[in-house]
This record gives sequence, C-alpha cells and structure tokens, in this order.
Amino acid sequence: MKEIDGGITAVQGVRAAGVVCGIKKDEAIATFYGGNAMDLALIIFDEPATAAGVFTTNKAEAAPVTVSREHLKNGKAQAIVANSGNPNACTGEQGLKDAKRTTEVAGAELGIDPGLIVLGSTGKIGVLMPMDKVEKGIKMAAAELSAHGGNDAARSIMTTDTFPKEAAVEFELQGKKARIGGLVKGAGMIEPNMATMLCFIATDVCIERALLQEALKVAVDKSFNMISIDGDMSTNDTVIVLANGKAGNDIIDKKNDDYDKFYEALSSVTLSLAKMIVKDGEGATKFVELNIKGARNYEDARTAGHVIARSPLVKTAFFGEDNNWGRIMASLGASGVEMDGSTVDMWLDNLKIVENSINAGYDEVHANKIMKKSEFAITIDLKVGEAEATVWTCDLSYDYVKCNI
Amino acid sequence: MKEIDGGITAVQGVRAAGVVCGIKKDEAIATFYGGNAMDLALIIFDEPATAAGVFTTNKAEAAPVTVSREHLKNGKAQAIVANSGNPNACTGEQGLKDAKRTTEVAGAELGIDPGLIVLGSTGKIGVLMPMDKVEKGIKMAAAELSAHGGNDAARSIMTTDTFPKEAAVEFELQGKKARIGGLVKGAGMIEPNMATMLCFIATDVCIERALLQEALKVAVDKSFNMISIDGDMSTNDTVIVLANGKAGNDIIDKKNDDYDKFYEALSSVTLSLAKMIVKDGEGATKFVELNIKGARNYEDARTAGHVIARSPLVKTAFFGEDNNWGRIMASLGASGVEMDGSTVDMWLDNLKIVENSINAGYDEVHANKIMKKSEFAITIDLKVGEAEATVWTCDLSYDYVKCNI
Repeated sequence: MKEIDGGITAVQGVRAAGVVCGIKKDEAIATFYGGNAMDLALIIFDEPATAAGVFTTNKAEAAPVTVSREHLKNGKAQAIVANSGNPNACTGEQGLKDAKRTTEVAGAELGIDPGLIVLGSTGKIGVLMPMDKVEKGIKMAAAELSAHGGNDAARSIMTTDTFPKEAAVEFELQGKKARIGGLVKGAGMIEPNMATMLCFIATDVCIERALLQEALKVAVDKSFNMISIDGDMSTNDTVIVLANGKAGNDIIDKKNDDYDKFYEALSSVTLSLAKMIVKDGEGATKFVELNIKGARNYEDARTAGHVIARSPLVKTAFFGEDNNWGRIMASLGASGVEMDGSTVDMWLDNLKIVENSINAGYDEVHANKIMKKSEFAITIDLKVGEAEATVWTCDLSYDYVKCNI
Repeated sequence: MKEIDGGITAVQGVRAAGVVCGIKKDEAIATFYGGNAMDLALIIFDEPATAAGVFTTNKAEAAPVTVSREHLKNGKAQAIVANSGNPNACTGEQGLKDAKRTTEVAGAELGIDPGLIVLGSTGKIGVLMPMDKVEKGIKMAAAELSAHGGNDAARSIMTTDTFPKEAAVEFELQGKKARIGGLVKGAGMIEPNMATMLCFIATDVCIERALLQEALKVAVDKSFNMISIDGDMSTNDTVIVLANGKAGNDIIDKKNDDYDKFYEALSSVTLSLAKMIVKDGEGATKFVELNIKGARNYEDARTAGHVIARSPLVKTAFFGEDNNWGRIMASLGASGVEMDGSTVDMWLDNLKIVENSINAGYDEVHANKIMKKSEFAITIDLKVGEAEATVWTCDLSYDYVKCNI
C-alpha cells in the first residue's frame, strides 16, 4: 500500500469540481473563511456505485443528513453535492424541501435519478438555504467536472479549515491495482461522533454493500471518532463512501483476506484525514497523541482518552507548554473509568513522569523540551487490565477563542 | 430570612484567621495568585459540633479529602485547617502522612483531638506539602483567631479567584434567631460535582447529624453541582458544614417545617456562594442562567443544561456577544436527552428566538442588546415533559486561556 496524490479523483471513473456560487457571504469570506470563497462541490461517478454512510447522532439532525440517509437506503449512489456557508440545519420543513430540491436540480443537470444523489452541508445553523445560489452553483460545477477536480472539491467544503484535506492510497488486491481516495472538512466542533465533519470517499474496489458499510463503520470508529478538538458534536456529520468496482476484482462478499486488505487501506485513509483535522483544529498549535493502556476494557480506555482530550485545563496547559500532569491525573480521575488512584504510570513521549500516581522524579528540563515540540505523545498505564485505545487531540489557544467569537 | 455580613464568623461560637506562611511560592504570587500571598486558614468552634460533608468523586482523591472523610465518620468536628498553594494530591503515602500530621499539629496547638479536625487544600497537583510552612502557618493562625476572621479565612483559600467569597443569612427558628455563614473558593475547574471547590459552612442551628448530611447533599446538588465553568472536576472538592446548636432551638430530628426552614436558609447560602464562583470564573465576562423546561425528567433537564453550559462553542459565542442559537441547538441535540428535533422553543431573556426548532423571526437588534449585557438568561422548552432545571455558567474568553497556560 502506498500513498498517492489526487484525493477522491485518484479513483478511476470519478470526476469532481468546486466553484464559487455565493452561499458564503462576502463579509464572512474576508474573516471567518480566510478569503476562501469556494462554496459548492460536485462529485460524480460514471455509473451508480455501491454506497454506504455513517451520520451524526445529533437529535437536531440537519435536512441534508435526513435526505442522504433516505437516498442511501437502496445501497446505491452516483453523485454528491456538498456546500459550505450554510448547513441547512434547524430550518424545519422548508429546509427538507430545499434539500430534496437540491437533489432534483443536480439530477436534472447530470441526467441521473435524484435518488442517486447524496448531500453534505456545513456552516452557521438556522438560516434557510439560498436556493437560487445553490442551483446556479450546481450548473457551474457540472460544467467544470474533471478527473483532477478532487482538490477543488476539497476546497469548496472548507469553513474555518486553513488547508484542504485529501488522502488517497493504492494497494494490490487479487493481483490488481486498487485505490481509495477521499476528502474531508473539519476544523472546530470535532469530537466523538464526528462533529461538523463532512467526508466523502471513493474506491474502485468491488465489494458487497453490507461489508462496505461495516468496514466504514469500524474505520470511522477508529479514526474520526477518536479525535477531539473541543468536545462539541454537530447536526451535519456525514461520512459517505462509494465503491464503483472498476478495479476489476472479484466481489468481496465475505470477511476474508481481501476484506482485511480493503479495510486496512480504508482505515489508513480515514486515519490520515482524521489526523489532518486535529492538526488543523481551530487555533491548534500542538498535535497530541493520548495512549491509554492497561484499562479494564476498550470502552474505558476510549472514555479516559476522550475525557482527557476534552479537558480545557489539560488543553490550555498543552498550549502553555506546561508539563502539568496533575491536570491529566485529575481529568483521568474524573472520567469515571475503573482505576486505582495509586497505580497510574504516565509517560511524556518516552520519559516516565508519573509512577504509581506520584512524580516519578523525572528531569524537568527534558520534560519541558518535549512540551515545546509541535507533536508529542502522552501514554497512561492504568494497570487494571489489558485494553488500550488512542485518541488524538490538540491544544486550546487564544486563537481557538478568536475563531469562535 | 435576611442576608447579613460576617461570612462564617457571623455564626456565634466560631472564630477564624488567615495568614501568609509561604505555601504559595513567591514567583507564583505575582502572577497566578494576583498578588494574594495569604495561604492558610484556620477556623475553630468553641466546642465540638455536629458535622457533615460532601466530597469529590474523583478517583484520584487527594490526601486531605481522605483524612476529612475519615474524621467525619463519627459525625463531629471542631476545627478546619485549609490552605491554598498546594492540594496535597497525587502525593502517595507521604501525602497521607502529611495530611494526618497537619491534624496532629493543629490539634496540639488548639488543645483538641486531631480526630475533630478536617482539612481542605487547593493548588497545583503533584508536589509534596511543605510541612514546615504548614506547621508555622497553623501556629501563626492560632494566635490570630478572631470572631471577625471569616474574611481573612476566605482570602487565604483563594487561588485564581479575584475576590473572597462569603455569604451569611439570619432567620427565625422556633422564635429564636438562627444563622448560617460560609466561605468558598472556586475560579477554574468548576463543573458537576464541585470541581476544585472548597466550601466551609457554619450554623448555630441544632440539628440531628443525618438530617444535616441530607440537607447539605441536596443543597449542594441544587447549587454547586449546577454550575459549570469549564467542565473539569478536581481531586480536592470539599463541602463541610458544622452545626454547633448555639441558636438554642430544640433539635431538628425529623423532616418538619423547621427542617424546611433550615434547608431553605442553607440552600440560599450555597446558591449565593455558587453564583459567586460563576461570576468569578477564570476570565469570565458573562453570567448566564440556562433554564431547561419541558424535559422528560429532572435528569434530562440537568444533563441538557450541563452539556450546553460546557460547550466551548456556546461559551465562546457568549464571549463574542454573538446570538448564535444554532450552537445551542447543536449542543442540545448532542446531549442525548429525549427531545423532538422539531419542537424546541428558546428565549433570550424574554425574547423568543426559536419556535419549533427554527428561527422565530425575532428582532436582531433586540437580541444583540441582550447579548451585550453582563448577565442574561437562556430558556429552552423541549416540550416533551414537565421537568425543569437551572444551570449557571459563564463565557470562555481569551483570559480563560491566559489563566490556564
């Protein structure tokens, strides 16, 4: 397996485009969106593809999520319309009508069944979608579709993201070359269950629908659901994968070695994209890997990691480059996971800083050097079991506050 | 019932003092502690009093908490030693020895059984207690005990608090004058279950121990457990109440009208102190009351309030004076409480801003005026039940980050 360029359009039979159609408001582009005016992405497959999706569990689910869930029920999709600047969330009945209308307009423009079109939207909640702009944008994008358009599509779904996020890999499957490519937007509101995250993935692997869904679910759980920016979860989270079978492999219809190869490649793409989200967290200056070991079970390890990753006190200490392990201990103790308050060990990269819950007598100068790095790892051994989990997070800086006021 | 001055020493038979003994480090006093060098408080009752306590549920419980729990088992206490500058947390066996030693030194100095002494400590985790300073501080404080020392005691437990926090009330009980007074420290790390909070309360009411414990538990649940600064919970949370019976009332030994009167007065003191903590939240510029109504049950109302109060996106919007109700809807939807995504109503003070989960067509100028106030209320009606709860929170500002780096 090797990483390749091209993002979602690295996959054969996939074209994409991104355009400026005015959904992002002019005054916001200068500040909130950092000058990036692109706001509508269109992605199309040559033929209907096998499709699977994972969506927000937020009870204030946005209209595009409702429509995409519905359209994925038959397991097929052929095109994706995604926009930034407006999430079509908390927009009631009109919002639902607008989302359906978007699939109809795109279907007519592309000459395909609207039921084969899925959606993704992101932006500030509570404003009706400017449908005239959306319709114009779909027409503009349809005219610009290209086998090199993945990057434009990735740019068009950015909000406070500071760089477009794409990943693609190539790997061998049954002696044939197979590919998986995708794009994502993240930035703020990222925490369990994929908050304000739109991710679209394409693959040319031929795979049975239920297995595609299962592989996606597990890959999302081990990547997007293991990162934390600020603990919020959005109304619009969407991860959709389309598989067009153009690699020419015999269909994967059971959990054999081929499935494992596919899962490995898929999870490598989702993990790359997830880590990009953390590195581009709003105002983030540090990328921190939290390894929890020796937990009673996986759920405990995951919970401990997430509670620590979410603690504003821990995150501001990261920003301040302050080796304040006491805040991590306090957060761990408050997480509710099974632990013994007197057996915890902790490492900063490879430096042991806590042994049996007290200062391990480490070299402060060494510790301070590690805290000054832009990337480091914290490993915690609870010593009450065998389970482990890894969570990725960032710091909480002045700029996080600035991004969100 | 009326509010009175004097804090904990408003109660007869109670003396207190606060001193500078050097537990707070010189370099930290200039910055972290805002110039406040006072770091040890001593509070003593003329005779052993009926005592009850509520403590942190953090599994990395600090040594002073362990000792106080132990000493309260017999239901009696006579003196409190509390310090800022060091929490004696994550200090292992030595920490426990130091906490016990503190009660022995104070017992010898005050001429009382060490088992009648309870403790409270706060500061940066993981450093052994400087016992020479603690011993010196106890001796200094014992020499300064005064019936007007409540304020000095309140100042001596401050960390990043910007003002000392005291409250006291006087009320009639069986035709006699009764009083309750207390002090608290808060500032950061405040969220369910009382994170880094030390609170000591005195009353001259005569009340049976189990009822004192029950009244305290409920009063804490409706006050300190309903405020949120940053969602963290500490290793040292402690609320202790001592009742010396000097009001001369017949003992309250059942849940009658007298108990209700006592509970009302006690909860008025804890709520006053809790609100002071929010107003003095690290970097806080806004005091926001979140009223959740129409919930399925109290637990749901409470959870929804806490999840919203903890959301960094909601809190930065408060700081930015941005009426971003979409973030509140997203946070509510993510809280997991039973709700219908299309029936939520929301008010900003008395202005209805959301009706049935969409924009209620309100006056933006009016809404912006309310957001600019230093105190306002947000009321949410879920319309799925009858239960309600109120949570108090503050905004997340640049200064919160600055306080914690």
